[in-house]
Amino acid sequence: MSERIAVPLPKAYLLLNHGPTVLVSSAHAGRRNVMAAAWSMPLDFDPPKVVVVIDKATLTRELVEASGEFVLNVPSRALAALTLAVGTQSGREIDKFASAGAVASGIVAAPLVEGCLAWLECRVIPEPHNQNTYDLFIGEVVAAWADPAAFSNGRWHFPDEQRRSIHYQAGGSFFATGDPFEA
Amino acid sequence: MSERIAVPLPKAYLLLNHGPTVLVSSAHAGRRNVMAAAWSMPLDFDPPKVVVVIDKATLTRELVEASGEFVLNVPSRALAALTLAVGTQSGREIDKFASAGAVASGIVAAPLVEGCLAWLECRVIPEPHNQNTYDLFIGEVVAAWADPAAFSNGRWHFPDEQRRSIHYQAGGSFFATGDPFEA
Repeated sequence: MSERIAVPLPKAYLLLNHGPTVLVSSAHAGRRNVMAAAWSMPLDFDPPKVVVVIDKATLTRELVEASGEFVLNVPSRALAALTLAVGTQSGREIDKFASAGAVASGIVAAPLVEGCLAWLECRVIPEPHNQNTYDLFIGEVVAAWADPAAFSNGRWHFPDEQRRSIHYQAGGSFFATGDPFEA
Repeated sequence: MSERIAVPLPKAYLLLNHGPTVLVSSAHAGRRNVMAAAWSMPLDFDPPKVVVVIDKATLTRELVEASGEFVLNVPSRALAALTLAVGTQSGREIDKFASAGAVASGIVAAPLVEGCLAWLECRVIPEPHNQNTYDLFIGEVVAAWADPAAFSNGRWHFPDEQRRSIHYQAGGSFFATGDPFEA
């Protein structure tokens, strides 16, 4: 397990501001799952909120609706193959945490995915119309964590090529987060 | 003006799938504006939908609510200084298109921002609760365009450092979209 430090809640949006692909982990009544999501983003600063699209066909959807909780995990390039795998397999058929390491969260029941760069523990703000019509879930971030080698003092500083965040394109192809620059 | 080719609507989500920062352009009753938004993402494939957060204090909000339309423009690194500027200035005080070149859209009234890599013309799907409570707007993509030097056949292929998409971090700092890789 990589090191993990708490990120102050008003800075939690910075973990997603650059639009990385995330892993959504969930748990309820002894079952747990993880899926990939390219469609998530911050929604508010303080208290921090996020949105994420979770398809009706997924086990994640069932666990998130039952528990009212989820975790957004920010995977590194080292976890790209895992990200692709958990984005194509169904948790109804295999235990996806057999390949993804799980670490207990601070507040919610859903586990943190081991080896990620950052984690946002979220409680669903129930919005049935959005959920039913658009598969769109709003979560309030109740705890946030980061690997200090990659994020500290409110800024990302990826230490090497394998510990950059990633952005899914399509067909198994990702972009790594590139070099920072000042405008 | 860079070259511009139509992107088939079922592939429009690929223009935003990797989470770039966008410019939101809008127009109504002879007024027009452009602002930066790090918080936008695809919401559906076909018909394609997007979501974007537009703060109540902005002129963009007023123009989008009045017209029911907006354009998401994907700026390149060459436009990072412009992106930062239109993200900090208010269209109530200056005409931001004095520095950003405008090109007529295909369908909506809002102009396309010249020199961008891609453009998604959108019509608002009215959701007053989301708009009022979360500043969250849902749009259906009614036309999509890309510079074929950067996007064609459903894939991004950034031709040089200045024509990569960008991802806002904070405090004037961006990441360029990095190199593609297969997982």
